Amino acid sequence: MTVLDVATDASALTDALDETHRASELWASTTPLERSAALNRVASFLAERADEAVAVAARETLIPADRLAGEFTRTIKQVRLAAEVVAEGSWLDISITEENAEAKPPVRDHRRMNVPLGPVLVFAASNFPFAFGVVGTDTASAWAAGCAVVAKGHPGHPELARLLETLVSAALSESGLPAALFTLVEGDELAVEVLKHPHIAAGAFTGSIRGGVALTRVAEERPVPIPFYAEMGSVNPVIVTPRAWAARRAEIEAGLVSSMTVSNGQLCTSPGILFAPGPGVTGEHLLTLLQGTSAAPMVTESVAREFHAGIGRLAETKGVTGVPGVTGSRDPAARSATPVLWSASVAVARTDPSVFQERFGPSSVIVSYDDLDDVLDTIDALDGQLTASVFAEDEDDITALVEHLGRRVGRVLLNDWPTGVAVSWSMHHGGPWPASSNAMYGSVGAEAIRRFLRPVAYQNFDEGRLPAAVQSSNPWGVSQRVNGVAQPC
Amino acid sequence: MTVLDVATDASALTDALDETHRASELWASTTPLERSAALNRVASFLAERADEAVAVAARETLIPADRLAGEFTRTIKQVRLAAEVVAEGSWLDISITEENAEAKPPVRDHRRMNVPLGPVLVFAASNFPFAFGVVGTDTASAWAAGCAVVAKGHPGHPELARLLETLVSAALSESGLPAALFTLVEGDELAVEVLKHPHIAAGAFTGSIRGGVALTRVAEERPVPIPFYAEMGSVNPVIVTPRAWAARRAEIEAGLVSSMTVSNGQLCTSPGILFAPGPGVTGEHLLTLLQGTSAAPMVTESVAREFHAGIGRLAETKGVTGVPGVTGSRDPAARSATPVLWSASVAVARTDPSVFQERFGPSSVIVSYDDLDDVLDTIDALDGQLTASVFAEDEDDITALVEHLGRRVGRVLLNDWPTGVAVSWSMHHGGPWPASSNAMYGSVGAEAIRRFLRPVAYQNFDEGRLPAAVQSSNPWGVSQRVNGVAQPC
Repeated sequence: MTVLDVATDASALTDALDETHRASELWASTTPLERSAALNRVASFLAERADEAVAVAARETLIPADRLAGEFTRTIKQVRLAAEVVAEGSWLDISITEENAEAKPPVRDHRRMNVPLGPVLVFAASNFPFAFGVVGTDTASAWAAGCAVVAKGHPGHPELARLLETLVSAALSESGLPAALFTLVEGDELAVEVLKHPHIAAGAFTGSIRGGVALTRVAEERPVPIPFYAEMGSVNPVIVTPRAWAARRAEIEAGLVSSMTVSNGQLCTSPGILFAPGPGVTGEHLLTLLQGTSAAPMVTESVAREFHAGIGRLAETKGVTGVPGVTGSRDPAARSATPVLWSASVAVARTDPSVFQERFGPSSVIVSYDDLDDVLDTIDALDGQLTASVFAEDEDDITALVEHLGRRVGRVLLNDWPTGVAVSWSMHHGGPWPASSNAMYGSVGAEAIRRFLRPVAYQNFDEGRLPAAVQSSNPWGVSQRVNGVAQPC
Repeated sequence: MTVLDVATDASALTDALDETHRASELWASTTPLERSAALNRVASFLAERADEAVAVAARETLIPADRLAGEFTRTIKQVRLAAEVVAEGSWLDISITEENAEAKPPVRDHRRMNVPLGPVLVFAASNFPFAFGVVGTDTASAWAAGCAVVAKGHPGHPELARLLETLVSAALSESGLPAALFTLVEGDELAVEVLKHPHIAAGAFTGSIRGGVALTRVAEERPVPIPFYAEMGSVNPVIVTPRAWAARRAEIEAGLVSSMTVSNGQLCTSPGILFAPGPGVTGEHLLTLLQGTSAAPMVTESVAREFHAGIGRLAETKGVTGVPGVTGSRDPAARSATPVLWSASVAVARTDPSVFQERFGPSSVIVSYDDLDDVLDTIDALDGQLTASVFAEDEDDITALVEHLGRRVGRVLLNDWPTGVAVSWSMHHGGPWPASSNAMYGSVGAEAIRRFLRPVAYQNFDEGRLPAAVQSSNPWGVSQRVNGVAQPC
């Protein structure tokens, strides 16, 4: 069992991270199939104790057990997808240029491949105790890349983190791998010490902008800076064209309330703004919809407190009005929240950017517009976002709108809601600052592995001395590019 | 003609960067073939004025004209390779996951592709007025990615930068493209203002560690941080095994002197350290070799001054001795330098890390060792490097050595010298900090384009509204991954 708790002193920390470093080097030298098998074993060990893990998570987070069971299934799928991706091998990004003595100047044989960065520090999120927890997507993708993981548990679910650590530890032991491939760290201060340690080669975080920015800065200011991937939040604008609003307003309103209340709004993809054509929102249908919802728990007391403070500020914002009859829970002491909707004009929203801030809870602002061009201008001035959604009819020309959105967000949806992030080869879960600290990477699915790789080239080596991946005989059977041409496997 | 000189005021700067921004959006919307054709036209326009450009560069830098002519040919090759890479299309990294209504939860169609980051600020280097100049590899790869470029000229060759700007401008005009796809900036202060401007989306730099670190920090501390790729320098260790030293010492010594004097040592890949088995260097053969060299010009006065200061410090370092009879030019006032060699033991080198600092000029330290394990330990403690070279015989087991080097450097060479960086699909020119500010990227060849791309996903779009690249009909004929499986083009 490898847990660094708050009582860990500097010497014990150094010893533990030396172990992490050694384990990471050993893990880096495994073949894709070995790595894939070990990941699948972790997935199996997790799945065997699903009921127990869900029960612990439900008690600690107050998230309903059925939602947690779904999240746990997704988390196991993430680990299995990471296993599939690492076995497939395209992440190695192999490129071989053979010797060309005739070229001027002559070209020596050289071959490039990706190698793991080294040990990764993962910060677990509050709102997804499994999917973005200590054995979530960051950990799965760092392992897949060939990196040992040190995971900082979230204080909202400490018992769960310890349970998951024992399951991972057992799976690693069964695979004959060192326990130090996974170390649990508890406490913010200790985690920052780990982030500063020379053995740590990258960091990954899902949480608030404030936390993500602070940790990114720590990573940048190290004597040897390291990449830090913070997925920090988003207000996920939804734009409804006049035609779509006319054709299916009731359906879209129902979709909004449904999407914004998933996980009681505590999702980084929760739709916090919906642009609808004027003249403002009457609220009768919305009121009916919201009356079908009720107060639901928040994952931690501080998340609840921040949410209530956020909607309190919104209520005091000039030009922003609560949808009549729908004000939601305003009890700052409660660790729960009731869905709440607001309306504002696009002019108000543009003069007060606080309207576009993420609330992280079941709150959304319906922004009325007269002219879609005003929405385009507003989008251009928005902070970077994880997602933006467009609701449009077939007759609508949305070319310009989609182009604008593509410049500000990581994922554009058409007639679909942003909550629900598929774990797949093609998902992109990230976006321009401050949605992510690094817009070039995403944290979900196959792409997540690339955050923990860097290229190395080998020049003028004889076949037998090359790493297996870049040998011409291709013993790993992975995709290779040769002299600029992608080869069939 | 688009040149921002030191007299440019804030308002003119804003206007110019607004133009850059608009040009970048237009350029981003071009097809790969359009972009490729425009790049090839730039290459042709450059090639037509090769003699004139080389003459200007020779006058400004004092680099011999034949070496500059070779560099110019290489630079044109870089632009043509960028054109080839952009047309080939794998940089789009397209991944399509089709709808799966049967999955639990159901999966909506979603498709990921790379898009350009936006305008890139390029800082030209002193030592390669063409290859890493205002129309060098950074500019070519940023254009290929679909980004407009603002290039800061190096004060060592201002007239050349203006000439290159007119050639590029003419080529862009001939292609019907806006002149603002390429803007020349003069002066450090103005360049920093540009780096801070909201329209700039990334930066690229080749030069000193001091300069690269300072600019990286500016990029990180912007309200919206942007990626900054600084390629900063390296001492490029060479390790000779006892067997190789016994078998071909004279050949290796000749190779060292040849490699360290390429471009009078003013290369980021110049071999600054050679580990050879003890008992120290007698220097007779080396003396003969160096007597065949002579003082040669340095590219700028400040480069010459820094070099002389650096070797002055080396001469005063305890345990470091000049190879007898070979001391080189020590005249700090001269804008020239004579090749110089030093010897030290591995013990001395390890206690004084200054021995491993880059001198940026024709100086190399021969470090004698008794036990190759001491070299391994020294390598592990080294700063990140662009390259490391191993000279070994067939009987040598260099597995551990190559593994160690792979963790500290970007390119490992076997029985080859690091100077000379092929412009190819497979080169990696970069390395762990402080060789590069970001070890995950390289600045030469096909890989360089990736520094200026980020992913965007499109979810639940109908075919006709998708960007062409990710349409199932694949109108661009580029490689696409579908449901996790790479498709033949």
